[in-house]
Amino acid sequence: MTKDEALKIVKEQLTEHRYQHTIGVMDTSVELAERFGADSEKAMMAAIFHDYAKFRPKEEMKTIIQEQNLGEDLLRYGSELWHAPVGAYLVEKEAGMEDEEILQAISSHTSGRVGMSMLEKIIFLADYIEPGRHFPGVEDVREAAKEDLNEAVKQSLMNTITFLMKRNQLVFPETLHTYNDIVRQQGGKNE
Amino acid sequence: MTKDEALKIVKEQLTEHRYQHTIGVMDTSVELAERFGADSEKAMMAAIFHDYAKFRPKEEMKTIIQEQNLGEDLLRYGSELWHAPVGAYLVEKEAGMEDEEILQAISSHTSGRVGMSMLEKIIFLADYIEPGRHFPGVEDVREAAKEDLNEAVKQSLMNTITFLMKRNQLVFPETLHTYNDIVRQQGGKNE
Repeated sequence: MTKDEALKIVKEQLTEHRYQHTIGVMDTSVELAERFGADSEKAMMAAIFHDYAKFRPKEEMKTIIQEQNLGEDLLRYGSELWHAPVGAYLVEKEAGMEDEEILQAISSHTSGRVGMSMLEKIIFLADYIEPGRHFPGVEDVREAAKEDLNEAVKQSLMNTITFLMKRNQLVFPETLHTYNDIVRQQGGKNE
Repeated sequence: MTKDEALKIVKEQLTEHRYQHTIGVMDTSVELAERFGADSEKAMMAAIFHDYAKFRPKEEMKTIIQEQNLGEDLLRYGSELWHAPVGAYLVEKEAGMEDEEILQAISSHTSGRVGMSMLEKIIFLADYIEPGRHFPGVEDVREAAKEDLNEAVKQSLMNTITFLMKRNQLVFPETLHTYNDIVRQQGGKNE
């Protein structure tokens, strides 16, 4: 599949605003892949498709999560998490994407995952820092992303957890597990 | 066991500084129990004994956690969590405390627990807000504790999680689960 074919497919699935976000994530992902030595072609494809399922009806996403065993636990947390694993499923089924690394990066881009690959970290981070993102702390994460992928991902996770708690929202446990996973990789003080 | 007998037992286990903290937790726990309608005698006893194991050697605590099946997972997180479940075990074994509600409150006072009883919440919160505690945010929690036990406990959990993340430390998953549990009880936005 070419870049243009991929972009054409997702454009039909997204609002114009979300499509522009996707372009931002694509550019940022390719930049991060080049910086940290990941496959920039895969980073580009994963980024293009990362929000493929963003505007699917909740009921459709719920059914897919149940029928495809994508983790019933997800249904007990915010529905804004659902489009990521559902997206991986639909991008394979509807767009014919078969690359497991790309699908995995789509699947974990919102919640994080313990044991994320470099590609997964790049998509997760690019989604957080692409140029269209404006919120407190994002500039610090952009700075960290210039040198240290793990540090930048960890800061994104921390900011997300803090943001959700301040809004009195549930925090998906895997997001905290991912934070702990990276602290362990960094040799945190508790180790 | 009388209050004076209990205090005599713990005094031998603690530094003077930690003993004064215990007195603060005791006074605060009794106050909270009266405010929210819990058993103030049990609150007093749980508070007196809550830090009983605080100064036990790490190796002893580790052995007890393993041999008594107090949750091997604990050992993968900060050792400052260990004195709580180990304390519950030792207070039963060495001080003859048999009240399960009191032992449970000692056990969960650092990490929190999904499904905490009112007594557990009171000890957890009193440990956080007793008059000897001085750190950012504690005054807001004291204010919340005047009216809403769940809200105050939730704020303590949030502050603890944020504090640990800012210091690049591991966060024990049960602490996040406890936060989520209270958000659910409050009817959080994601429900």
